[in-house]
Amino acid sequence: MRAAVLHGGRMVYRDDVPEPVPGPGQVLVAVRACGICGSDLHFAAHGAEMLALTQQLQGMPMRGGVDVNLAADVFMGHEFSAEVLEAGPDTDTHPPGTVVTSLPVLVSAGGIEPIVYSNTTIGGYAERMLLSAPLLLPVPNGLDPEHAALTEPMAVGLHAVNKSGIAPGETALVLGCGPIGIAIVAALRNRGVTTVVAADFSPKRRQLAAALGADQTVDPAQGSPFDTTTPAVIFEAVGVPGIVNDVLRRAPAGSRIVVAGVCMQADTVHPFFGIAKEISVQFVLAYSPDEFAASLRAIAEGEIDVAPMITGEVGLDAVGQAFDDLGDPERHCKIMVTP
Amino acid sequence: MRAAVLHGGRMVYRDDVPEPVPGPGQVLVAVRACGICGSDLHFAAHGAEMLALTQQLQGMPMRGGVDVNLAADVFMGHEFSAEVLEAGPDTDTHPPGTVVTSLPVLVSAGGIEPIVYSNTTIGGYAERMLLSAPLLLPVPNGLDPEHAALTEPMAVGLHAVNKSGIAPGETALVLGCGPIGIAIVAALRNRGVTTVVAADFSPKRRQLAAALGADQTVDPAQGSPFDTTTPAVIFEAVGVPGIVNDVLRRAPAGSRIVVAGVCMQADTVHPFFGIAKEISVQFVLAYSPDEFAASLRAIAEGEIDVAPMITGEVGLDAVGQAFDDLGDPERHCKIMVTP
Repeated sequence: MRAAVLHGGRMVYRDDVPEPVPGPGQVLVAVRACGICGSDLHFAAHGAEMLALTQQLQGMPMRGGVDVNLAADVFMGHEFSAEVLEAGPDTDTHPPGTVVTSLPVLVSAGGIEPIVYSNTTIGGYAERMLLSAPLLLPVPNGLDPEHAALTEPMAVGLHAVNKSGIAPGETALVLGCGPIGIAIVAALRNRGVTTVVAADFSPKRRQLAAALGADQTVDPAQGSPFDTTTPAVIFEAVGVPGIVNDVLRRAPAGSRIVVAGVCMQADTVHPFFGIAKEISVQFVLAYSPDEFAASLRAIAEGEIDVAPMITGEVGLDAVGQAFDDLGDPERHCKIMVTP
Repeated sequence: MRAAVLHGGRMVYRDDVPEPVPGPGQVLVAVRACGICGSDLHFAAHGAEMLALTQQLQGMPMRGGVDVNLAADVFMGHEFSAEVLEAGPDTDTHPPGTVVTSLPVLVSAGGIEPIVYSNTTIGGYAERMLLSAPLLLPVPNGLDPEHAALTEPMAVGLHAVNKSGIAPGETALVLGCGPIGIAIVAALRNRGVTTVVAADFSPKRRQLAAALGADQTVDPAQGSPFDTTTPAVIFEAVGVPGIVNDVLRRAPAGSRIVVAGVCMQADTVHPFFGIAKEISVQFVLAYSPDEFAASLRAIAEGEIDVAPMITGEVGLDAVGQAFDDLGDPERHCKIMVTP
């Protein structure tokens, strides 16, 4: 079958990927849409450093998904919707043709594997893939499969907002209006937070933040967002070195920083800035199964309109070009791969 | 009168400091004891950098105590007990001879000034100083004035524990058993936390941590504390570059780090370690007035025995030597200045 795979730091097209065969508890699905995530771009560019950092990590409950051979083809794509084709042996599932989404996790006899970066577990940049029957969520309300595929990044935003513990009356500042920043803006709006300020250098992205619910947008080139707003919670969704230190220096005393941007490099901070103002920093990642389901519901019920986020659509043979194109914030937010 | 002052990076003895005169709302007191704080050692060694960092800070409600001229004499000493001598004009206070302690803050016509580093406001390394009548706390139960002077550092520990939100059933790991680490151990024990693990390279400091309530002590030279314990909350009370990153790398997923150590240099961290494990980092500083009062009560009622922390006593003419001596963790925890 056809797929786009990471090979030598580039996404390349393959038409000879072996057909996946569902085992017990698994379901073969046809991918309908898969969003390209910034973390996939990161992994394509910095996979080796990322795996090296992962190897250094201690204190993790499981170490799934880290044994990746970058010299071989790597499957990616974790923001997907798909159509049920057939169930594995002894497996009950939804009728063929049902459009579903799922937590990007595959349960097999060997254990639980994240569907994120793998030499063996196929992700959403492919014609077909395997999912786990108990994790399937039928897409309700005839929702567009491209919109359903964005359940995953919107769940990341919802989780960041939930972890922040923000109260509706508090002011939120969202730094960076890429897909995660936008998902955070949407979740804040949906939670009823009354003042949501979003900052990005790109006019297009600021416009998108406003469309998804930001009350006010700020161009950091025109001055620090902290000059005009006094946020209780700052969502860092940029993920480059230097941002956290700058926020520690400028943020109001007692504020909370939620780090949702994924900075994969070493970063320099002055702890003194945090200490002098008793700032808290909550690092966040991913979401719970409940948050994933809530995210799908919010999209399907029209509480969050993800349509403006979708700025492009490509086939499997154009994923490499799409990875390049996503570097331009004026052109793109989210490109959907539709096999 | 006599005092020890910071001059040219060293503590020097003076016998010609002008006598302080209490204004309205102020009280002249005779210092009975003043603890030497690690932050005073820091300021003596790195005052210029510290002031420069303070200048960069935004988002602060007030900027007290930062306009310090390091070329002139600097008064320090914020862990004190004292005896009431006389009240300023139109000021009611406790009878002369009453032993008191106070938040290290002086209220005057010009505003509120921290008693911490100042060219004008005298601190506890002096024969006499001014305090604010409304802030005086009489020392109860005939408590030794040297013990009462430790209300301040013990309040720092109590505040760090309160900010952590630790539950009694959770395991705490305290990294660094200098005075602040020890104060945290004591506050954890007093709060009823059942498992308190304390780590320090120094045998003497580990012994002290055990005396103040640590259930278990670890020598990091013999292996990482994280190899033998799985803390929910990690109190960082070392304050040197590299520690926070090491904790982020080794700490259990979902754990909370409380940064009580005051690292005044730039520090390098890998945000990825925090992100992958969704760690939270709470920077802490000082205490509330309530916590200060609770700290005095805990000492006065024998809930916390600070006596083992006191490892030396010097007069005003030996403060410089005491600053040097505090570099050796085998000899000293807290040296008290008794004018």
